[in-house]
Amino acid sequence: MEKSLRIAIAGLGTVGVGVIKLLQENAVLHASRTGGCAVQVVAVSARSKDKDRGINLSAYAWEDDPVALASREDVDVVVELMGGDEGDARELVETALATGKDVVTANKALIAKHGLALAALAEKHDTQLAFEAAVAGGIPILGALRHGLAANAIERLSGILNGSCNYILTTMEQQGRDFDEVLAEAQELGYAEADPALDVDGIDAAHKLAILTSFAYGCAPNMEAIYCEGIRTVSADDMEYAKELGYAIRLLGIAEPTKAGILQRVHPCMIPREAPLGEVDGVFNAVQVQGDAVGRVFIEGQGAGAGPTASSVVADILDIARGIHYQPFTVYASDLEERDIATMDEVHGSYYLRLSVVDEPGVLQQVTGMLAQEDISIKSFVQREHTDDSPAQIALMTHDCPEPAMQKVITALNAASFAQAPVQMIRVAG
Amino acid sequence: MEKSLRIAIAGLGTVGVGVIKLLQENAVLHASRTGGCAVQVVAVSARSKDKDRGINLSAYAWEDDPVALASREDVDVVVELMGGDEGDARELVETALATGKDVVTANKALIAKHGLALAALAEKHDTQLAFEAAVAGGIPILGALRHGLAANAIERLSGILNGSCNYILTTMEQQGRDFDEVLAEAQELGYAEADPALDVDGIDAAHKLAILTSFAYGCAPNMEAIYCEGIRTVSADDMEYAKELGYAIRLLGIAEPTKAGILQRVHPCMIPREAPLGEVDGVFNAVQVQGDAVGRVFIEGQGAGAGPTASSVVADILDIARGIHYQPFTVYASDLEERDIATMDEVHGSYYLRLSVVDEPGVLQQVTGMLAQEDISIKSFVQREHTDDSPAQIALMTHDCPEPAMQKVITALNAASFAQAPVQMIRVAG
Repeated sequence: MEKSLRIAIAGLGTVGVGVIKLLQENAVLHASRTGGCAVQVVAVSARSKDKDRGINLSAYAWEDDPVALASREDVDVVVELMGGDEGDARELVETALATGKDVVTANKALIAKHGLALAALAEKHDTQLAFEAAVAGGIPILGALRHGLAANAIERLSGILNGSCNYILTTMEQQGRDFDEVLAEAQELGYAEADPALDVDGIDAAHKLAILTSFAYGCAPNMEAIYCEGIRTVSADDMEYAKELGYAIRLLGIAEPTKAGILQRVHPCMIPREAPLGEVDGVFNAVQVQGDAVGRVFIEGQGAGAGPTASSVVADILDIARGIHYQPFTVYASDLEERDIATMDEVHGSYYLRLSVVDEPGVLQQVTGMLAQEDISIKSFVQREHTDDSPAQIALMTHDCPEPAMQKVITALNAASFAQAPVQMIRVAG
Repeated sequence: MEKSLRIAIAGLGTVGVGVIKLLQENAVLHASRTGGCAVQVVAVSARSKDKDRGINLSAYAWEDDPVALASREDVDVVVELMGGDEGDARELVETALATGKDVVTANKALIAKHGLALAALAEKHDTQLAFEAAVAGGIPILGALRHGLAANAIERLSGILNGSCNYILTTMEQQGRDFDEVLAEAQELGYAEADPALDVDGIDAAHKLAILTSFAYGCAPNMEAIYCEGIRTVSADDMEYAKELGYAIRLLGIAEPTKAGILQRVHPCMIPREAPLGEVDGVFNAVQVQGDAVGRVFIEGQGAGAGPTASSVVADILDIARGIHYQPFTVYASDLEERDIATMDEVHGSYYLRLSVVDEPGVLQQVTGMLAQEDISIKSFVQREHTDDSPAQIALMTHDCPEPAMQKVITALNAASFAQAPVQMIRVAG
């Protein structure tokens, strides 16, 4: 069989260049895995034509305007790697789908925000919209939810979805350093963006969680349904207490059905150190799926970078080359349901609290009394000697309790006369 | 859209019953994930019609002869869950494919032995042959190799592919007990078969490795290409030394390209305890794939049991319900290459040796001398006090060396006058 698939690539950053290299280097392998289809890059677009990217672009047509790629008659698939949830990226994807071209993208923000509309557009024009690379980089999690785990009702899905946060938290843990210092270093090393908000405030993880939730629960991605809390308040002290208590602190995205609807949340978690997610270090990502038939499935891999992201982008291209067609979110866009949105009131679990208090007799008794009033009991407890110029610190883990009760206690603790700083609370999950 | 897919199931053991239950319990979910296709069991076959299986079979047609399922006009997909690489299972699958029916099977032995011929038959009749459940139970690894990791040249694939062996080794490790005792207990608990050879001699793991290798390297499954060594010789002493040296002992299946061809091997391995595969305990399975673009991807889940296996069987059924069609081994059967077979001579790595020797001065010097003669240096070393009625034991880890050099040393060590028992050797891998 002799076939070819003609590709246009918009965006020639690390990932775009990675995709071109991967298509070149493994061309023979890709042809064998697609029954003889030759995948050929025919056109590219990026901000600057003359920038040295370490690859020869002379064989490809150049478009200054990325959206023009969608109108080229010599293109079968548009690969969107510009990023951004509006502007050129959105226009390019919409134009491509509407003009009968398949689209592969790594753009989590675009899919999380406009996924439903884009899926409907793809269906209307019988084109493919694929975005394996948008979630957890090289981890083939969307394919796993679509195929291998599709028989299961998903009881819970949780994941480490942002490599920058995981790098920062791991480094804080290993080196006993504080957030600001490690963030600055991560920025220097290129592991965090100059504007780190998208990463450290949990928004990037929330984009990915919105897409995962959609695959797991058959609802449209909905950023507004996600409770989102970043890692800026996690301190070196928290890391030290976590270690002492046998936990690792990681930013998790979690989705699960509750009686009130689907609960989606991104926040720092205390994870038992021996749990699979508690052992994911550095820039690695991981996703854990709890299915009613399969039980726990855990997948770990690199969540970002040229190679891992290109791996997933090209995976989607190869499926198109094989003629495999599926709906963008597995189910038809018209079947993506509006689901009830559960709030954090539905959380029921164990909590870590760190209190800064005046060093006076009776404080501990008051704290335990306030917890007892909400029927919350303490599982473990650490108090360390403190120096004269810092307030006394108490760290404790509670037994399982409902979030509303915990929030009441936190309000009371913050208002107490012994409070020297707001309570730090981190939820236990794994 | 209103469609239906009619299923016949041959074999009503734990997995067969699990598949029926899963199709019943998640019927609404499955219909939503397939764009409205109703998956319906219409006929079944098993050894005994009257056995109580805890489910009501009265709605399904019964066939005493499983092969008759393939000829029924009311059946679209035959699900083969009888097992065995010849006889009824093979005849059923062949007849179904040849009469235009799709086949889903969990039968690793059948696919490992006859996969190429069956794939050619499926292609010839334009039918589907799917077997996600044949490898590592609920772990969606074949789908991951076919789709998400397809862009990668696979540099190495390794996995814990047999839950019985992993349970036995983990129990030996945790309880300090010997192989025979733990095997007997595993048999009582139903974690190991009455005839344990298929599991503990590594043959079941080899079946799965043959299939994985085929997906990873585009060659036909070939059991004869696999070096296979089971876990019967692993002792409580080995476990203790492994712990002391920071390793876990697990049965691994490993495939990798070498300059001499594809090397496939199943044998006990010393795995660094902190490596992902070294942390897989009990009946869990795991597969680690090293791709040239994606780096390391690690997937862990349950490798056997009704739920996990049914999860993968039904996953394949749902793909058929969606109209997704692929070649059984991803590439066309005619493109499955004959690959050169590498032997164990290509292994290059670190080795664990346990020697039982007479307790005399100079023995250690002789041992190190024999290693040095083959240019093998020692990385770490443990000798413990021994009781009068047992020989002295020396356990050591070598630096990396070629397998042929190691084999020469072992031959020499076994022939030495100080040898009290054959050398125990376990390869280091992870």
